[in-house]
Amino acid sequence: MDKSRFEKQMEFILEIDKAKTIFRQTYLSDGKRKENDAEHSWHTAIMAFILAEYFDPDVDVLKVMKMMLMHDIIEIYAGDTYCYDDAGNATKEQREMEAAEKIYSLLPEDQAKEYKDLWLEFEAKNTREGNFCAILDRIQPIMLNYATDGRAWQEHGIYEHQVRKRCEVALNGPEDIKNWLENLIADSVNKGYIRK
Amino acid sequence: MDKSRFEKQMEFILEIDKAKTIFRQTYLSDGKRKENDAEHSWHTAIMAFILAEYFDPDVDVLKVMKMMLMHDIIEIYAGDTYCYDDAGNATKEQREMEAAEKIYSLLPEDQAKEYKDLWLEFEAKNTREGNFCAILDRIQPIMLNYATDGRAWQEHGIYEHQVRKRCEVALNGPEDIKNWLENLIADSVNKGYIRK
Repeated sequence: MDKSRFEKQMEFILEIDKAKTIFRQTYLSDGKRKENDAEHSWHTAIMAFILAEYFDPDVDVLKVMKMMLMHDIIEIYAGDTYCYDDAGNATKEQREMEAAEKIYSLLPEDQAKEYKDLWLEFEAKNTREGNFCAILDRIQPIMLNYATDGRAWQEHGIYEHQVRKRCEVALNGPEDIKNWLENLIADSVNKGYIRK
Repeated sequence: MDKSRFEKQMEFILEIDKAKTIFRQTYLSDGKRKENDAEHSWHTAIMAFILAEYFDPDVDVLKVMKMMLMHDIIEIYAGDTYCYDDAGNATKEQREMEAAEKIYSLLPEDQAKEYKDLWLEFEAKNTREGNFCAILDRIQPIMLNYATDGRAWQEHGIYEHQVRKRCEVALNGPEDIKNWLENLIADSVNKGYIRK
């Protein structure tokens, strides 16, 4: 018998539980362990509505939150690729496209299309909401790296120019975010969290 | 010097990172460890928009998502109280009110009021959105308990009448959710996950 619409939805909801077991390179603020995808997504979705006032008043905050909450579930099948891992990033796109096909197709057809399209928009970063998401996705780990004395940066020997390139979208973003980020990078270089 | 609005917001955002270290009684679907508050909140916020179609079409999904994402941050100071812990639940309200005052007051005044009010609405459960949230908050751990062969229920020797009482709001909810839940409870009793 075909699965009902509700059964498909609940199957998807159970499957994405696995995002809680996909770990990133960033440490939690207490430094005791690394953060997982579900935690990162939760954090950035809250940032979306707390910081929305710094963005275009026409931005669709609900859409931004959906994008932030779901943007990493493809890593359940594709794994997390560290942002400064050049080899991993070369194969990332193909792996993630296949993963997106697999995870979203658990949903009823209309929702599968809607949420896969949202993920593609997140990846393309060429809309108001995609740009907002990209900025949140960059500044959340920066905040945690700084709070843990640059631990993840130090473990990987990250240079200032790498952080600047990675955060370009945020450095070109709203004034308050840009200023906060510039101060944080300068202080991180000063304290040796990031290599000059 | 007084903190700027943006500094207050970033301080709040960093402080709520601690929700990732507050553990609940529910196990993840792989059974390897318990779930924390940030993960639970992330999961229920996604359920909000995937399952919105079963609720009143006038429901404010953005509001529901904000409520779900933030509803447990008071536990950073008040701790998690297991839903079947009667002694803990006797002092829960006072502890949580004090915690809410403390955590939300990190935000600028207008946001502190807005988000503390949302939490109070979540607790009161007497609006369309509060009811939606209460249902999500109940069915998410039920789903995970069932997926782990009732592990948390068995560890605490939970009876069917306790689960029914706890899930009353969902058993009186939308038809599809009610049917799913009735089947799941019946099967859990049958398999010995829950005591009859």
